[in-house]
Amino acid sequence: MTDLFWPGDHLAGDLMSDGAFLAAMVAVEQAWLGALVDAGIAPADARADLSVADGDVETIARRADVDGNPVSALIAVLRDRADAETARWLHRGLTSQDVLDTAVILCVRDVLIRVGVECAAQVRALSELIETHRDAPALARTLTQAALPSTLGAKISRWLAGVLDAAEPLAGLRTSLPVQVGGAVGTLAATTELAGSIDAALALGDALADRLMLAPALPWHTTRSPITRIGDALVTCCDSWGHLAADVTTGSRPEVGELAEGSGGGSSTMPHKNNPVRAVLIRRAALTAGPLGATLHAASAASVDERSDGAWHAEWATLRTLARRTVVAAAHTSDLVCGLRFDEGRAAANLAAANLAAADGLLSEQQTMTELTGRPGLSDYTGAADRVVDATLSRARHFLEESS
Amino acid sequence: MTDLFWPGDHLAGDLMSDGAFLAAMVAVEQAWLGALVDAGIAPADARADLSVADGDVETIARRADVDGNPVSALIAVLRDRADAETARWLHRGLTSQDVLDTAVILCVRDVLIRVGVECAAQVRALSELIETHRDAPALARTLTQAALPSTLGAKISRWLAGVLDAAEPLAGLRTSLPVQVGGAVGTLAATTELAGSIDAALALGDALADRLMLAPALPWHTTRSPITRIGDALVTCCDSWGHLAADVTTGSRPEVGELAEGSGGGSSTMPHKNNPVRAVLIRRAALTAGPLGATLHAASAASVDERSDGAWHAEWATLRTLARRTVVAAAHTSDLVCGLRFDEGRAAANLAAANLAAADGLLSEQQTMTELTGRPGLSDYTGAADRVVDATLSRARHFLEESS
Amino acid sequence: MTDLFWPGDHLAGDLMSDGAFLAAMVAVEQAWLGALVDAGIAPADARADLSVADGDVETIARRADVDGNPVSALIAVLRDRADAETARWLHRGLTSQDVLDTAVILCVRDVLIRVGVECAAQVRALSELIETHRDAPALARTLTQAALPSTLGAKISRWLAGVLDAAEPLAGLRTSLPVQVGGAVGTLAATTELAGSIDAALALGDALADRLMLAPALPWHTTRSPITRIGDALVTCCDSWGHLAADVTTGSRPEVGELAEGSGGGSSTMPHKNNPVRAVLIRRAALTAGPLGATLHAASAASVDERSDGAWHAEWATLRTLARRTVVAAAHTSDLVCGLRFDEGRAAANLAAANLAAADGLLSEQQTMTELTGRPGLSDYTGAADRVVDATLSRARHFLEESS
Amino acid sequence: MTDLFWPGDHLAGDLMSDGAFLAAMVAVEQAWLGALVDAGIAPADARADLSVADGDVETIARRADVDGNPVSALIAVLRDRADAETARWLHRGLTSQDVLDTAVILCVRDVLIRVGVECAAQVRALSELIETHRDAPALARTLTQAALPSTLGAKISRWLAGVLDAAEPLAGLRTSLPVQVGGAVGTLAATTELAGSIDAALALGDALADRLMLAPALPWHTTRSPITRIGDALVTCCDSWGHLAADVTTGSRPEVGELAEGSGGGSSTMPHKNNPVRAVLIRRAALTAGPLGATLHAASAASVDERSDGAWHAEWATLRTLARRTVVAAAHTSDLVCGLRFDEGRAAANLAAANLAAADGLLSEQQTMTELTGRPGLSDYTGAADRVVDATLSRARHFLEESS
Repeated sequence: MTDLFWPGDHLAGDLMSDGAFLAAMVAVEQAWLGALVDAGIAPADARADLSVADGDVETIARRADVDGNPVSALIAVLRDRADAETARWLHRGLTSQDVLDTAVILCVRDVLIRVGVECAAQVRALSELIETHRDAPALARTLTQAALPSTLGAKISRWLAGVLDAAEPLAGLRTSLPVQVGGAVGTLAATTELAGSIDAALALGDALADRLMLAPALPWHTTRSPITRIGDALVTCCDSWGHLAADVTTGSRPEVGELAEGSGGGSSTMPHKNNPVRAVLIRRAALTAGPLGATLHAASAASVDERSDGAWHAEWATLRTLARRTVVAAAHTSDLVCGLRFDEGRAAANLAAANLAAADGLLSEQQTMTELTGRPGLSDYTGAADRVVDATLSRARHFLEESS
Repeated sequence: MTDLFWPGDHLAGDLMSDGAFLAAMVAVEQAWLGALVDAGIAPADARADLSVADGDVETIARRADVDGNPVSALIAVLRDRADAETARWLHRGLTSQDVLDTAVILCVRDVLIRVGVECAAQVRALSELIETHRDAPALARTLTQAALPSTLGAKISRWLAGVLDAAEPLAGLRTSLPVQVGGAVGTLAATTELAGSIDAALALGDALADRLMLAPALPWHTTRSPITRIGDALVTCCDSWGHLAADVTTGSRPEVGELAEGSGGGSSTMPHKNNPVRAVLIRRAALTAGPLGATLHAASAASVDERSDGAWHAEWATLRTLARRTVVAAAHTSDLVCGLRFDEGRAAANLAAANLAAADGLLSEQQTMTELTGRPGLSDYTGAADRVVDATLSRARHFLEESS
Repeated sequence: MTDLFWPGDHLAGDLMSDGAFLAAMVAVEQAWLGALVDAGIAPADARADLSVADGDVETIARRADVDGNPVSALIAVLRDRADAETARWLHRGLTSQDVLDTAVILCVRDVLIRVGVECAAQVRALSELIETHRDAPALARTLTQAALPSTLGAKISRWLAGVLDAAEPLAGLRTSLPVQVGGAVGTLAATTELAGSIDAALALGDALADRLMLAPALPWHTTRSPITRIGDALVTCCDSWGHLAADVTTGSRPEVGELAEGSGGGSSTMPHKNNPVRAVLIRRAALTAGPLGATLHAASAASVDERSDGAWHAEWATLRTLARRTVVAAAHTSDLVCGLRFDEGRAAANLAAANLAAADGLLSEQQTMTELTGRPGLSDYTGAADRVVDATLSRARHFLEESS
Repeated sequence: MTDLFWPGDHLAGDLMSDGAFLAAMVAVEQAWLGALVDAGIAPADARADLSVADGDVETIARRADVDGNPVSALIAVLRDRADAETARWLHRGLTSQDVLDTAVILCVRDVLIRVGVECAAQVRALSELIETHRDAPALARTLTQAALPSTLGAKISRWLAGVLDAAEPLAGLRTSLPVQVGGAVGTLAATTELAGSIDAALALGDALADRLMLAPALPWHTTRSPITRIGDALVTCCDSWGHLAADVTTGSRPEVGELAEGSGGGSSTMPHKNNPVRAVLIRRAALTAGPLGATLHAASAASVDERSDGAWHAEWATLRTLARRTVVAAAHTSDLVCGLRFDEGRAAANLAAANLAAADGLLSEQQTMTELTGRPGLSDYTGAADRVVDATLSRARHFLEESS
């Protein structure tokens, strides 16, 4: 799967593709059918291996325009291919939204796993970069201007802290992803009929969650925080990579020259160019992620009745696009930080030049402090930078232990 | 082309698809090559029919990840397939952004043409609906509550006015779409070398515009209002359809019952349902359009240097998605308004019921006025509704004459 | 404090007002000064009660335009009013961003406390509403159309679940709000000079956190997830109220008539109107919250260097506006749910009417199920609605116990 | 008026403040009352000078929370202060939305006038900067990396082109701002009663437009493109200034050093700093403008019935904030470009350094071209840069002539 308008899209592979989405919907129907048979509600004859063919995606997508969602069309295809008993029991008790929402959640789980793997790779690579360059003197800048001495280690630690801020909540999110089982209006009415009792109906819902390894949940057809929570987490990942990439494009400007991508991209007409293409493409993703997350919130806020009249439908492609872009940006960031090269000489030179340029040197703040204390200043005026680095590295180790 | 996550996507056909985008980039290279030969800069031997094969899209998309955009990869493919002289002259003078921006503009033109056709169909259908129902009494509502008597004609006129507001600027936009020719940094330096003079270089740019039937333009590599202008126009279309669809979903609630889609969608489990699926899917589009337009503005505002470090790259897929969704929503709206059925009896009954329910009837405002004037009230208290309808119909006729 | 453009703004009182912001900045300087003295770094003479006068807000706001933030101007005012020793030690070790960020966090804490109180009130009121109406038959609707029988209890439970989803994370968020202490570039360099050792410098930062009852934290000058996390939580609150309000405006349409606000608003010209004004104003807030949250993410993603060149500055007013609107919407929602009146008769009548209107009645789904099971159907076909209600009420009780 | 959270807010003065909004609403009521008397509908005794007192803003704002908008409260205040005959005729024929929308439009007109003045000042200042530096050699950069030689004139021309793109449509927008007169449901029913005929009612609407110097218009209560059009235009202004400011913050990095703000801002702790504060604050505005514009579109798309149930209410503060921020950013940009200093030496040195750094020099593209043409290269390889500058200057002159 590639997207000519979004270079790098193929790095997300099949994640949240049409094929993965269809397969996930089939998996939901399959698990439900199995649960019905296991519970003795559907006869053993109804048990079957459901599957779709390659061409079905397009057929189903076209028919989805008639119904507003792809589930009815999918069921028609599945019933058409199934034995009578299977066809008779397939989907019974569920509603379109149960299947679609649960399928989206399954797709999201794969996305979160992949993003988690990439984050762990980034945390390792950044930790190594810190170890290599932690004490290298570097100029710290505020509002683009020379501010004070710092270290490359401190700079990389900030990127690491950003990645950890984004990555730490992902594990909890992944293990609490909820199943959706409510039936047409969230009352499990049809399932209760089929199961013969409310307890048995609720048990069926739990069985579905169990089979799909999702968290059991009350119906959330029009309470959409499970979706916005995912969206917010993905956007937060893109934010942290965007920050890192902004520092990379800035630091790789030839006049700054403190860092460079391992392998930049070329130009169609200027052979001398070595563009920070990973960083550029990550910035691209970061620019677009926030508004996608906001769209999920807008959809959530517009929820109404027992199934929404457009808000629900706005979520699917929005979350798909946000998820795939997050995966692509994750891969780009892993690649970026694994190949990133620092020029300690240039960093030191920029610091020295800034020091010369400032009227009384960069260390006028330090002078103010020594006048206050009456003590000679500490030599390099990098304060607790090293301890901040240590604390961040320690947090990184903890994260890697937890996530391994 | 279908999208399982966006039912109806196939209604946009090939518009702004990967294939259309690639074809447009080839068209730009073709036109430029032709212009170079016609100007006597490239030899006649360089003239050739450029083309790509089906599998090229994926190859080029994958390689675009290396360079950050697909143009270098496209040129490599084209050169590989071309005679030596063609390969030698292909793309000379252009930069990736010239090709990509102009190609996007070409794709947008096709989108604007299609949206224009749909708008004209809507204007015709809405005008006919007005003629049929213009005097049918209906309840006007403010903040969801019964307000005053009005007519179905007045309601449909508002939809028509919204569509006209959105559609009228499209023609001017379509005919002013700018070519992009600036070379690597917007100075036309390479083209000037090739052409031998600045005048000849500028003439080449104009020749490209002419061949592609675009407006000649100074380079706009980092002044992106041509893109945001398109985005704003498309979002405004979606707004107007969203408004119409909100009235349709409201009016087709069974308790209101004043209107119904010609052919609604079914349910996977409730056979009695007749859902207003066109309106639901239009509302979906309207929810997502604004943030996509905002992303184009965010990218424009982040422009920097002679080519932006991520902002430019964020535009392509954003505009693609916005454009395809606008086309789909346009088609859905045309379909909706062509099939829309009004229940004049229910409209009159709702008006009568509201009148009964209000303490002194809906016409307490009218009483206040007659007390002021000392004259008996005009019978139906629909004021100038009919004249507003007339003025809107007249505007519609003018639009249709202009756009035919 | 009122805002003519945002009716209800005064319900947020002084929360995150200019005055509260200024007071919070003074509180940070005060706490830091105290910590310096307590640590024996500043002399006892430096201890003083800092304060600002009413007119200072405007002076400081105007001067903030020169520096880009209000802290330098505040310090000038404070120094001007202080004894020499206090003036000498004031702010030493801090940077503008330390003061401003920590002050914003203090203001946010007050906002979160207030929102938490409102949420608890809503949870109580909704729980009571459920108890009163839990079994009242009501029509469930999907895509605006009649779907199946349900109960008013189930509908109110969904609102309650939405409020709980939003409210439950607030407590954890409130108690983990981080202090900001990093000095000019996040290295605590000046503080380390003053304190004489890194350990002592870090202890000073912890002392500041302690005095302000905030969580100790590593500097987060350009890793802004603490801000986006707050933003996402507030937006999620507005989402849940927006959903509730959408059901209220829908249900209070005269043709539906199932519910009404306790005291709606009037019209400037139509005395018979009883508008669902709380719901309307809540919907307003919900429409605007998502894009404000997205702006915070955009700012986070644009972080660069040791202090950002505009991204930081974009946060303050954005978070202020989002926070105040969330408080206003919280108050409106509390008011709404406390006064909400249900018309059980209309609800039952709408259900009956929908049943009549459907070709084979609403219960055709039930018939399909009974054909499958061979058993007679359960009488009311509301399935597990009652158990969903129970589970939600139980969750509500747990929330109220935890938050009391 | 100041805003501690938005440094520079006072530069927008009273524009679109609560006071200006209230005054505009009074102006609408005043003009309507005058029109009623002039038309012989209201008696001459009803003529009066309406006015509000300072304290009224707060009273009205508080009461607006009850009705959902401030107009009823305003009318109560005005009637309370008026003679009986004036009180009797005041507001007759209008609805709240007529008054509020027209008042917002009046406020917007003042904003557009001010923004137009600032744009003209910018166009003049940028034109002068171009004249001073047009031929100064400078490095052009793409994706942050050294690309080709260019000139400072070409760089400034791009800023100028961006400002012109944004500024040129403002004049047409300003002169087409529509009055809102429709009465409670857009039918002019009450006005028709009062005026005695439809023609006379429509004439009253035109008289109001005439008195307020606005464009006559059909009612647009739920067709909101007049508002989104304003929003899009303001966002486009902020985009163009954001682009300019991004180049300024980049170019004023000490390592680049090609330009500097006339008077930058200081630091609370680092006396050596000279921050590009104008550019930083402009970037801030540009980050927040797009989402505000998107909110206006979201509101427009959610329009429903004859007056919307929240969408309308979301517009007021959103447009106010967007408008004031645009004015502040306009003032900052004027200030920035009037004081901007270029360091031609550094620009030349950066170009020379880049040339040295590139494997075969920056001019490898030129070599490719000369190999193709067989002619020696033109000396500086800045192509048509000078002609692009000329064309932009010419466009600027035309703009200034038109707008003077």
